[in-house]
Amino acid sequence: MNRKGILVIVSGFSGVGKGTLVKRLTQKYDQYALSISATTRNPREGEEDGREYFFRTREEFGRLIREDRLVEYACYCGNYYGTPRDYVEAQMEQGRDIILEIELQGALKIKEQYPDALLLFVMPPDAQTLLTRLRGRGTETEEEIRTRIHRAVEESEGVEQYDYMVVNDDLERAVDEVHGLVEAQHRKISRHLDFISQIRQEVKAYAKGE
Amino acid sequence: MNRKGILVIVSGFSGVGKGTLVKRLTQKYDQYALSISATTRNPREGEEDGREYFFRTREEFGRLIREDRLVEYACYCGNYYGTPRDYVEAQMEQGRDIILEIELQGALKIKEQYPDALLLFVMPPDAQTLLTRLRGRGTETEEEIRTRIHRAVEESEGVEQYDYMVVNDDLERAVDEVHGLVEAQHRKISRHLDFISQIRQEVKAYAKGE
Repeated sequence: MNRKGILVIVSGFSGVGKGTLVKRLTQKYDQYALSISATTRNPREGEEDGREYFFRTREEFGRLIREDRLVEYACYCGNYYGTPRDYVEAQMEQGRDIILEIELQGALKIKEQYPDALLLFVMPPDAQTLLTRLRGRGTETEEEIRTRIHRAVEESEGVEQYDYMVVNDDLERAVDEVHGLVEAQHRKISRHLDFISQIRQEVKAYAKGE
Repeated sequence: MNRKGILVIVSGFSGVGKGTLVKRLTQKYDQYALSISATTRNPREGEEDGREYFFRTREEFGRLIREDRLVEYACYCGNYYGTPRDYVEAQMEQGRDIILEIELQGALKIKEQYPDALLLFVMPPDAQTLLTRLRGRGTETEEEIRTRIHRAVEESEGVEQYDYMVVNDDLERAVDEVHGLVEAQHRKISRHLDFISQIRQEVKAYAKGE
């Protein structure tokens, strides 16, 4: 039966705990791989090419774009970030469900190219929890916090184009919920039409007395 | 949060064990209700009106049709069978997921009226298992068995219009899989747009310093 990997996109308000959720998911279940982005930003101390990021020059990154070797890319704070097509497709071919933590624009670009992709939107249980988390880091001014909150709200525009909502109230519960949604996606009928058609042929042949 | 019940339609090759699966599902998890059909056929011994079926005269059934009080109906072996709208909607309003075991035509009619309905198609693990089950009852002639098999194949026409496939190899596993698919459906983003919009408003108000 078809057990080709699924492209899982995780988005949500910043501060909602997407990173922790995704990390825990890959620890808890073997079937997942985290996508590794290509970027033009400089490696920070301890970062390794091909582990945290694929570090590329602007020239190299430009070539990746022109050769359509990124499933999506964006410019953020003056640096480019993109998702390498080769890496994503190799993981899927090997039957691994590959997780991308990206925003709406990239998510929709990917859904166009991979209609089977699963778009998940992570929500806080309530507004207060989100505000507390956003303020909780304690290192920023009130003004900076307001800017970040404003940005968090912007990230939730277009949410109706996602497939499912996951509430991150309890980490383990949320992780299992995401896992359940991925498993559901594996059961989409469109992924199994060959299997169904084959069984139908075999049964039909028998009914005809062949 | 929205926990309105979901309409779950279970179809599949006859002989695949849909009935057992659905029965076990309602025993194992509290959240389900089985739909009760209205029918014009006579009650058999031990059957009770409102438990196995709603028993109706042809005249009464005709009125149900004309008043659009059936979500679907069909004629089978000279008797009418239909799904009462009142009953289904009352269960959903109470937050119960309601299960209908019906065929393609009815399933599609329901999907038109309730786009949120979940259409599941149950498959045997392989053709041989299905053939063994169909023959296994041991009470029919080879000719009757071939007819039933032919009919089983017909029931799988239009399968690509269903949402998910469930393989019934191990009963408990298949039951949990169906349950997982229903739980996934509860997380569809379209069911939670009010919740998301409310949180967004609250966070936005804060970002503006209100």
